[in-house]
Amino acid sequence: MKLPQPILQLIEELAKLPGVGRKTAKRLAFSILLKPEEESAALAKAITAAKTTIRSCQVCHGFSDSEICQICSDPRRMNDVICVVEDPRNIFTIENSNVFQGVYHVLQGAISPLHGISPDKLRINELAQRVEKNNIRELILSTNPTLEGEATAHYLVDLFKDKVKKITRIARGMPAGADLEFADSNTLARAFEGRTDYT
Amino acid sequence: MKLPQPILQLIEELAKLPGVGRKTAKRLAFSILLKPEEESAALAKAITAAKTTIRSCQVCHGFSDSEICQICSDPRRMNDVICVVEDPRNIFTIENSNVFQGVYHVLQGAISPLHGISPDKLRINELAQRVEKNNIRELILSTNPTLEGEATAHYLVDLFKDKVKKITRIARGMPAGADLEFADSNTLARAFEGRTDYT
Repeated sequence: MKLPQPILQLIEELAKLPGVGRKTAKRLAFSILLKPEEESAALAKAITAAKTTIRSCQVCHGFSDSEICQICSDPRRMNDVICVVEDPRNIFTIENSNVFQGVYHVLQGAISPLHGISPDKLRINELAQRVEKNNIRELILSTNPTLEGEATAHYLVDLFKDKVKKITRIARGMPAGADLEFADSNTLARAFEGRTDYT
Repeated sequence: MKLPQPILQLIEELAKLPGVGRKTAKRLAFSILLKPEEESAALAKAITAAKTTIRSCQVCHGFSDSEICQICSDPRRMNDVICVVEDPRNIFTIENSNVFQGVYHVLQGAISPLHGISPDKLRINELAQRVEKNNIRELILSTNPTLEGEATAHYLVDLFKDKVKKITRIARGMPAGADLEFADSNTLARAFEGRTDYT
């Protein structure tokens, strides 16, 4: 006997979520079926509501529930320091660490010729416009320490080095709490290159 | 900066799913936000559709998309052999193994005085009616091999022993592919008790 079609459909949709295999999707589907009506309705509603109300901030292209996001419209943030990230999720990660008081710019990806992502597919034009219009004090390149992220950072340095006074790249090195024993050689190389002086 | 309310709401609803902690819920929420519109809509729709079209089969109380489920309405199934399970999900597990050609009865739980689940809270009356109305050849008690499942099985044996010719309990023993080294003593005890004769 096959599962009824609506259950199969639900399993299929759930299995499209990241890290959710068919077995987990099945478990989730059944748990949704066994939930009280109002709880499953709340879940369906939350998906639709999040999807319809959350849009790209007109300035930084991060997630926002208004035209201009909370960060971009906050007068206490230094809007002449822009932290450039690949993904809107990165903003919340950085915000959580409370280390940055400037504003953001989401590229919505990284340059990757292998995947057909050329610079014009990213929000680099929009960044150029922000740089043009405002007097930017510092551009902090926080793209990922991957091949694509590094390539993107280099591209941005070339593009903006004559237009922005200061362009920095977040440090790459040993993650806090990590064990040297398990560090890969790339990370170690970066950690040695970027070593700071204690004397 | 806090996450926009619609995202927080979505994370909260996702975190109610089994095995989904706040971190996973966040990851799922962001992935839903980054999905194409039609995919997230399909997920929300699948939840609502499954929840509204799937109901309890009038006969066995398993999941069904019609009044009487596929199994109960299949003339090829032996409807005088009833496999009693605790949970509608169990039906699909048993069906997957292709070992059973009879019909099912879902109790929707197991007797558990600790959790206030007395026999009248379960679909035992409905089972009694099925036994009364039909000439049942065998009742296979497939409740879980837990304290509650065993108690429920014993209760059903007492209740039906004069009304049904044959009442059986699924074997308890070593799971296929398991290592004796890691078997708990309860399982081992059951495996010894239920040992079969090769001579």
